[in-house]
Amino acid sequence: MDFRNVDKLNRRDMIRGTAMLGAGAAFMQPIPLWAQSGTMADIRKAAEAGKDASIKRIRDWIALPSIAAENRSMAEGAAYMAELAKDAGFTHVEIVPTDGHPGVFGTIDVGAPRTLGIYFMYDVKQFDPTEWSSPPLEGKMVDRPGFGQAIMGRGAVNQKGPEATFLAALHAIRAAGRKLPVNIVLVCEGEEEIGSPHFRQIATKPNILAALKKCEGIFIPFASQGKTGNVTVNLGSKGIIELELVASGEKWGRGPKGDVHSSLKAMVDSPAWRLVQALQTLVTPDGNKPAIEGWYENVRPLTEREKTLIREAAKAGDETAQKQALGITHWIDNLSYDDALIRLAQEPTVNIEGLVAGYTGPGGKTILPGRAVAKLDLRLVPNQTRAEAEKKLRVHLDKHGFTDVEANVSGGYDPTEVAEDSRLVRSELATYKKLGVATSLNPRMAGSWPGATFTAPPVSIPAAHFGIGHGSGAHAPDEYFLIDSTNPEVAGLVDATMGFAEFLYVLAAIK
Amino acid sequence: MDFRNVDKLNRRDMIRGTAMLGAGAAFMQPIPLWAQSGTMADIRKAAEAGKDASIKRIRDWIALPSIAAENRSMAEGAAYMAELAKDAGFTHVEIVPTDGHPGVFGTIDVGAPRTLGIYFMYDVKQFDPTEWSSPPLEGKMVDRPGFGQAIMGRGAVNQKGPEATFLAALHAIRAAGRKLPVNIVLVCEGEEEIGSPHFRQIATKPNILAALKKCEGIFIPFASQGKTGNVTVNLGSKGIIELELVASGEKWGRGPKGDVHSSLKAMVDSPAWRLVQALQTLVTPDGNKPAIEGWYENVRPLTEREKTLIREAAKAGDETAQKQALGITHWIDNLSYDDALIRLAQEPTVNIEGLVAGYTGPGGKTILPGRAVAKLDLRLVPNQTRAEAEKKLRVHLDKHGFTDVEANVSGGYDPTEVAEDSRLVRSELATYKKLGVATSLNPRMAGSWPGATFTAPPVSIPAAHFGIGHGSGAHAPDEYFLIDSTNPEVAGLVDATMGFAEFLYVLAAIK
Repeated sequence: MDFRNVDKLNRRDMIRGTAMLGAGAAFMQPIPLWAQSGTMADIRKAAEAGKDASIKRIRDWIALPSIAAENRSMAEGAAYMAELAKDAGFTHVEIVPTDGHPGVFGTIDVGAPRTLGIYFMYDVKQFDPTEWSSPPLEGKMVDRPGFGQAIMGRGAVNQKGPEATFLAALHAIRAAGRKLPVNIVLVCEGEEEIGSPHFRQIATKPNILAALKKCEGIFIPFASQGKTGNVTVNLGSKGIIELELVASGEKWGRGPKGDVHSSLKAMVDSPAWRLVQALQTLVTPDGNKPAIEGWYENVRPLTEREKTLIREAAKAGDETAQKQALGITHWIDNLSYDDALIRLAQEPTVNIEGLVAGYTGPGGKTILPGRAVAKLDLRLVPNQTRAEAEKKLRVHLDKHGFTDVEANVSGGYDPTEVAEDSRLVRSELATYKKLGVATSLNPRMAGSWPGATFTAPPVSIPAAHFGIGHGSGAHAPDEYFLIDSTNPEVAGLVDATMGFAEFLYVLAAIK
Repeated sequence: MDFRNVDKLNRRDMIRGTAMLGAGAAFMQPIPLWAQSGTMADIRKAAEAGKDASIKRIRDWIALPSIAAENRSMAEGAAYMAELAKDAGFTHVEIVPTDGHPGVFGTIDVGAPRTLGIYFMYDVKQFDPTEWSSPPLEGKMVDRPGFGQAIMGRGAVNQKGPEATFLAALHAIRAAGRKLPVNIVLVCEGEEEIGSPHFRQIATKPNILAALKKCEGIFIPFASQGKTGNVTVNLGSKGIIELELVASGEKWGRGPKGDVHSSLKAMVDSPAWRLVQALQTLVTPDGNKPAIEGWYENVRPLTEREKTLIREAAKAGDETAQKQALGITHWIDNLSYDDALIRLAQEPTVNIEGLVAGYTGPGGKTILPGRAVAKLDLRLVPNQTRAEAEKKLRVHLDKHGFTDVEANVSGGYDPTEVAEDSRLVRSELATYKKLGVATSLNPRMAGSWPGATFTAPPVSIPAAHFGIGHGSGAHAPDEYFLIDSTNPEVAGLVDATMGFAEFLYVLAAIK
């Protein structure tokens, strides 16, 4: 795959979606002294002492890339993950077979009143070493101006770095001779980068389901800080289905099965035109709203509270900088910044990711292609579901006479929501506050993640992201994760480790 | 460029357009003895004696590929062409500079009452040696089952083989001690494969224009026989414009300039959707007819004679075989074979050659592309013109509000027509008849060629294709030209050489 032209984008949607609202949305505050109690001082001392081991843990993990799409080192990756968990103190660690690649489950039961779930992925995105400035499996230390020294390698920020940093917190607490303040349940999959097709099998395995249901909530470790150090706490995310819409002579029974000479257009039907005609029924004439029948039936409008949160975030946002970063001069429908951000959270979308038909090289070639493909992603909002969306799309196409046009769904997630007053979110906010990290609340991330596996029945627990620290380049070349920060607003490895440790204690103590 | 999936197609449109009507459209007849007079017998003897030299002439020419798109060996190709012309007896041979690559002009004036024009191209299509079963510049002799021994190489049939065969006829006539029965005017270009952008400069240079205007007509040497040996004589061809329709954030002033994350679709406009919306205004809802305003204004309906000719050809055609070859089960609009062939000749078309936007690799990638392109070819019929079509397309897009959607025309030709009762066409038919080759008349080839340069003012002479013999693979790997035929219906090199010689004598003698 070729990511050269879009190397700042990433399929795992949370990164940019978060950045949109996060950048500039909080106040600049100095990070205070991290140690504020004897326990925390001891843990910090242990984290400092364990820093070299923590770095080695990240680098060694990067050296073993598990890539589900390539069936590369999957069993090895699961086994390695299991060992990492055992090392960090997890017991009952088991490798969980699925119909796809295996997951890993483990628990630490310290007899605490509260239990926290942790979601890990051990797989990474594909990579092309020729596009990297440093070998992607070496985990070399590089300077990132404005941030500091960082480990560069595939998986550095997505997601091995933040995950290993969470493990480092467990190591540090143990090394400091402290008992964990909460029990921990770890569920890990190896197929996140291909859309988590079998993750539900892991989460609903009876013993794992039982363990998850005891959790206050679950989070994915996340290096969420940009250069200002601010963090956005997301209260949910849109769902998504990704699909290919395919028109072909083969399925249509009209037009050619392969490519034929374009002069024949006058007597032969064109699957490429059929695709165009089917496509344009999916949206309003301006291309801006889904026009699939019944699409809005279950869409829940944003509450006034949600809109208020967005407007608050918008006030602190830098509209001009964001427009510049995106290369745009107008928001959709000429909306104001506030209304554009509200629309970002509110609206389901039908997006064209790509179009591929016939001759795609330089210049022209007089063919009439036998097949045409539109790659689409459809973002869903509560209370739409992926299953509902897939069904409605099919019904819509059929009703418009496009029974032959295939809608080949490759993956997707349901939307997620997590309550602002859940203990998970309250603990996040309290921890960030304690750490001196400015936050803003985002009612709904426009990106998508597999959190619905947790928030939907039968698991039904809050799910979110948590973590300080910094990294960038998920799915792109030169992915990195910050180790030694030179930016006073941004946490390096030890501070990020302490961030996770603080969180565990906050979650244990909060009302 | 990648021709692997369409290796039987070719951008130079005449091949398949002709084949459509040619296959099975004439009667199987044994080829008679070729020598029917002392003159012809002597010329045949000379052609036989010169056969090895003729083969060497083709192979040596193939070894020097001139490719305008790559600016490869263009000056050398023109100089080589000039030498070939001089060798064959042309005088006043000149290399003709243009604003692009040079052409070649030459004459043979034997003081005959009639003059014939010959159109050559010295350039060839790009090629990728790794796709060939034999090195494309070696001109290796290979066996083509059902046909015989053939020279394989880039340019073998498109167009060096047939052109060198015409030169072989001139050599043979001279070697036989005969005087040419007609004067000959040669015009040659080196940019046919990029759409002849400067050929008009050659044809309208005062001395060349003056020479051309004296011609009875002009033809391009052509190896026109399929396996039945039948030949279709085309009385014209459609015109074409090739273009890219481009929607971009850059030009639109809306949507992103580059690719951005697809979650932003809810607040950012989409150039890909804009392309879809612009596209669908260009055709009727079934995709089958141009809907560009005023498109049919100058379209001349086929005459009853033209329709009759098509129906006659249809009778001899093998509809089932053609459908099978094209991989289709229905003609457009469920037309009968007759009506489909009439529509093929009659209708202007708007065809999608290719669609390219955003992510085009395997699977999906959640981006909102900043640019989307449709590669189109628009076939024109008399009395549409390329200039008219370009203008109407622009006006149509503007009128529908798509002032930002670019229509970047890369090339094209006007439609051509040649009168059935012109001396050129009558000579062709008489020659084929004399050669025992079954023919059918096709009022209009659906493909396109630069003949309009000759048929339109200021040159205004008949222009057509002529020649027997066989070859295949124009623009594809393993292009070949038949040398020693094992098929009694199909001419090998010497018989094809004699075909050109016969034509010169027929043209000189016909009323």
